[in-house]
Amino acid sequence: MQPDYQAVLQEIEQEIQPYFGMGRVADYIPALARVPGRQFGMAVRTVDGDEFTIGDADSPFSIQSVSKLFSLMLALDIMGDDLWLRVGREPSGTAFNSLVQLEHEAGIPRNPFINAGAIVVTDVVTSRSAGAQRRIADFIRMLTGNQDNRVDEEVALSEKEHGYRNAALANLMKSFGNIESDIPTLLDVYFRQCAITISCRDLARAATPLAQGGYSPINGQQILDRRDAKRLNALMLTCGLYDAVGNFAYRVGLPAKSGVGGGIIAVLPGQFAVSVWSPELDANGNSLVGTKALELFTTKTGLSIF
Amino acid sequence: MQPDYQAVLQEIEQEIQPYFGMGRVADYIPALARVPGRQFGMAVRTVDGDEFTIGDADSPFSIQSVSKLFSLMLALDIMGDDLWLRVGREPSGTAFNSLVQLEHEAGIPRNPFINAGAIVVTDVVTSRSAGAQRRIADFIRMLTGNQDNRVDEEVALSEKEHGYRNAALANLMKSFGNIESDIPTLLDVYFRQCAITISCRDLARAATPLAQGGYSPINGQQILDRRDAKRLNALMLTCGLYDAVGNFAYRVGLPAKSGVGGGIIAVLPGQFAVSVWSPELDANGNSLVGTKALELFTTKTGLSIF
Amino acid sequence: MQPDYQAVLQEIEQEIQPYFGMGRVADYIPALARVPGRQFGMAVRTVDGDEFTIGDADSPFSIQSVSKLFSLMLALDIMGDDLWLRVGREPSGTAFNSLVQLEHEAGIPRNPFINAGAIVVTDVVTSRSAGAQRRIADFIRMLTGNQDNRVDEEVALSEKEHGYRNAALANLMKSFGNIESDIPTLLDVYFRQCAITISCRDLARAATPLAQGGYSPINGQQILDRRDAKRLNALMLTCGLYDAVGNFAYRVGLPAKSGVGGGIIAVLPGQFAVSVWSPELDANGNSLVGTKALELFTTKTGLSIF
Amino acid sequence: MQPDYQAVLQEIEQEIQPYFGMGRVADYIPALARVPGRQFGMAVRTVDGDEFTIGDADSPFSIQSVSKLFSLMLALDIMGDDLWLRVGREPSGTAFNSLVQLEHEAGIPRNPFINAGAIVVTDVVTSRSAGAQRRIADFIRMLTGNQDNRVDEEVALSEKEHGYRNAALANLMKSFGNIESDIPTLLDVYFRQCAITISCRDLARAATPLAQGGYSPINGQQILDRRDAKRLNALMLTCGLYDAVGNFAYRVGLPAKSGVGGGIIAVLPGQFAVSVWSPELDANGNSLVGTKALELFTTKTGLSIF
Repeated sequence: MQPDYQAVLQEIEQEIQPYFGMGRVADYIPALARVPGRQFGMAVRTVDGDEFTIGDADSPFSIQSVSKLFSLMLALDIMGDDLWLRVGREPSGTAFNSLVQLEHEAGIPRNPFINAGAIVVTDVVTSRSAGAQRRIADFIRMLTGNQDNRVDEEVALSEKEHGYRNAALANLMKSFGNIESDIPTLLDVYFRQCAITISCRDLARAATPLAQGGYSPINGQQILDRRDAKRLNALMLTCGLYDAVGNFAYRVGLPAKSGVGGGIIAVLPGQFAVSVWSPELDANGNSLVGTKALELFTTKTGLSIF
Repeated sequence: MQPDYQAVLQEIEQEIQPYFGMGRVADYIPALARVPGRQFGMAVRTVDGDEFTIGDADSPFSIQSVSKLFSLMLALDIMGDDLWLRVGREPSGTAFNSLVQLEHEAGIPRNPFINAGAIVVTDVVTSRSAGAQRRIADFIRMLTGNQDNRVDEEVALSEKEHGYRNAALANLMKSFGNIESDIPTLLDVYFRQCAITISCRDLARAATPLAQGGYSPINGQQILDRRDAKRLNALMLTCGLYDAVGNFAYRVGLPAKSGVGGGIIAVLPGQFAVSVWSPELDANGNSLVGTKALELFTTKTGLSIF
Repeated sequence: MQPDYQAVLQEIEQEIQPYFGMGRVADYIPALARVPGRQFGMAVRTVDGDEFTIGDADSPFSIQSVSKLFSLMLALDIMGDDLWLRVGREPSGTAFNSLVQLEHEAGIPRNPFINAGAIVVTDVVTSRSAGAQRRIADFIRMLTGNQDNRVDEEVALSEKEHGYRNAALANLMKSFGNIESDIPTLLDVYFRQCAITISCRDLARAATPLAQGGYSPINGQQILDRRDAKRLNALMLTCGLYDAVGNFAYRVGLPAKSGVGGGIIAVLPGQFAVSVWSPELDANGNSLVGTKALELFTTKTGLSIF
Repeated sequence: MQPDYQAVLQEIEQEIQPYFGMGRVADYIPALARVPGRQFGMAVRTVDGDEFTIGDADSPFSIQSVSKLFSLMLALDIMGDDLWLRVGREPSGTAFNSLVQLEHEAGIPRNPFINAGAIVVTDVVTSRSAGAQRRIADFIRMLTGNQDNRVDEEVALSEKEHGYRNAALANLMKSFGNIESDIPTLLDVYFRQCAITISCRDLARAATPLAQGGYSPINGQQILDRRDAKRLNALMLTCGLYDAVGNFAYRVGLPAKSGVGGGIIAVLPGQFAVSVWSPELDANGNSLVGTKALELFTTKTGLSIF
């Protein structure tokens, strides 16, 4: 029998209150730094098509690294398993944008969810399709069914102006021959993909194919085959939370992908997609309140992959 | 409806044949090096108490690092969550017995399944209980219900004679204050725990509590509480396969723990424990044929956590 | 009594013959790769103003990293000891263009002779003087007294087209706030400085101030104060030979700076500057025949700083 | 003309006063921790046989890592250049007792002056001569001409009780096959060698062969051949000061070896050996006042290798 998701969400909204103020809003660019921290939204979408939301579930926020999940779907569609010749599938074990590993492993990033790996993924989309930036945004809008998911141009510009570390990653990988695009073009696409705005409800809808064997009930299409849906879930579980994958699996027990905008999307295959948003981050760059909310969610429902 | 596990095992036994000879039996100690490589056994134990086996499922082999799963259960019972002050819960991202990470992180190993972490876990059992080595072996026998699971003294001695790297790990952690026991005593317990012999059938039985909310039908006891059973599954998934956790999750999709003796134990919570043994290892130190067999198992049954 | 330098040079020219073919001409850019390997020149200039040369001592070659010594003189003149807040004075202990150390030490390169450090040095000249590229080339021409030392535009362009790793270094340091210039401009100055052509005779003349307490007899000016001349010699000895400083000090025993064009300049304070050129490099990127020639030189003359 | 060394020492004794209290006495073992910090001695011995001393130049202190210079002389005598197959000659570029480099370079330490390298050197003496510990102490007494240079048994025992990191190094190198001796025996010799007591006057006498082409006027013997004396000076300059070789060369400009007992020995080939002792250490583990005193010494006399 299905839990009473709405009641669970209401309890969570109460119980996360003491955690506000314990994290810190991302401050490396002004446009993110001024987002008020005490916001919280959560949305569940079940495979039966039911939706449950609480709080600021319809407020748009900056998708940031959660976008890496969707550009990866596109790149897998373009390259198939050959993609794994250019990016690994192992957790990084070090800081999420470290250059050390890249240098030791000849420019092959450990996985597609660290910055270096996501840049390779975006390079695949950029170098092999016309209008790459448009294609990523179009794909996300197709998954959410919401034409309002647009690039926040101020955020995109600000990312670019502070993006020297990502430029270092791209140049280093290019020196190893693992980047095909022209670097300024590639970084432009990358920064714009991270600057798309989205809401919790949108995110839950967009991730539903991962809970439903690859099928999107939003647009009635098979987005991924069943096997790739499973595999993306496995990748999220082992690599989706920066340096905190182990702790997140231990506490929450769901495949998930987070972003420094404060959003997290998680999935229970065969059951639901659940998204949460709260801007204050923990030391690993994951939403502190959001992680707590997801931990409460799996504890209260008794539902996790483990 | 339950798959026809026996038929699945029979198909697997056929399909893994071409993979013999592609890996290499562990050769760092003579007692392991002389194990014939072309052996294969597999055992499934469901939560309904059914058992299905194929091949050499009752042949004893060296448990090696799979023992770390059981010593961890004991250490968690002794210290509770305080254990996590002395060992992390994150994948290592580097070679499974690396000293680098230990030095950078003040003697706190990344997780309890790399050698350094397992030595800390054994230190907890050694320093806080009388007759530690006996206690670990007794615990394993209690879980398997098989009094024949004994320490292979030749293997234990051989491990000790080639154990300078583990001695380096123990000394380094002791220099940081993270080892309480006398080092020769500790290493003796550690090497003996790794030298226990066990069969696939035994392993599947011993791991059943992880599939059954902590309850062991073998001895009728609640070995772990439900929450800790889930958590151990999460730890296995993110840290149980040395440097190959990501690939294993991607290909197999089950929480698992491997050992260089060629054994692997995996679990689908709520459904079954499945073990496999085949001595030839891949480049990451995991059974090559065993990993293939588990991949076939989840593909054929359509059952995985993802 | 002064050794018979000319006789020594003649002996060296004979004895280095068997070493041709043991190294490899730098091949990361076409313009360097096509330089014939079997060339050898050597020049000594004593503090008394005598000059002794052998072989191809007047042939122009690509100055490459030897230029770092001269840009450092300029940067020290501009910033004084404050330069050491932006770059260290310790040997790197790792590959000469590694990013690892930069990341661990917050964008402060270990010394001014590794690529990252030389980029910071060039940034000082670029950001704090008008016409930086011209200023570096002018300074070198002033030291050699030879107006023919010009930028090889083909080499400069080729460096730029293959300079992704240096671009990675510059971007990484900029992300830490240790680069002031616009990166494309900076890299342009840097690549052009490395592409200046020079001969052994020119190099020996240009380095004479380091043997003569900072005074240049070529142009009659005090280029550095006596203390800075000593300090630059100390820096060359501990940091001037990429990863081979220890072996070079052990075998040769002179402060020196090398470049992948095959040139090396060395100094015995109070006595002479000695330069050598031969394009084939050893595994550390230093001229193989050139290093051998300098080893023979200090052995035969019995003169070294030790 | 020779400087007035006595006058220089007197000026230095005045000028180093403000530097007391800025460093910290080594505190990793009690026997060193209780040494009063405000002590200072200095001794010069010229190649003409003159000796000049100031302050506590005849007070015995713990030789610690300065002993590595003397055990290296012995090991070179035993193995000749084959020693360099087991230990490198390059500066370490990282913390002086790091395990990282050892792991990356297959158990070959970077140089004989970091702990790992000194343990290999002591292993050579231990495994290839009877009564190794006695042999090292005898050799030092032979060089100083002072039979009072004895092992401080309290210090040796204390080193052993806190020597887990050195035990880790020895075990790691043994796992790579680079240690021949039994580890407890080896560490006992190593800790006892570091616990020898010596004075500044003794040290200056013991190092005189390095200033005098290998000849010891104390005992009238050629201790090293001329070439090896030069080479040891080169090794000291590039590797003798832990992580501070570059800064030391820049500030002082003499080949030197330091110890955490607060002693430093330095040499100007052809001129003198100079030793200093003051127990308070800087962040790199070198005597803070001692380093300042040597800097003043080379500045005031105008004598350095550069």
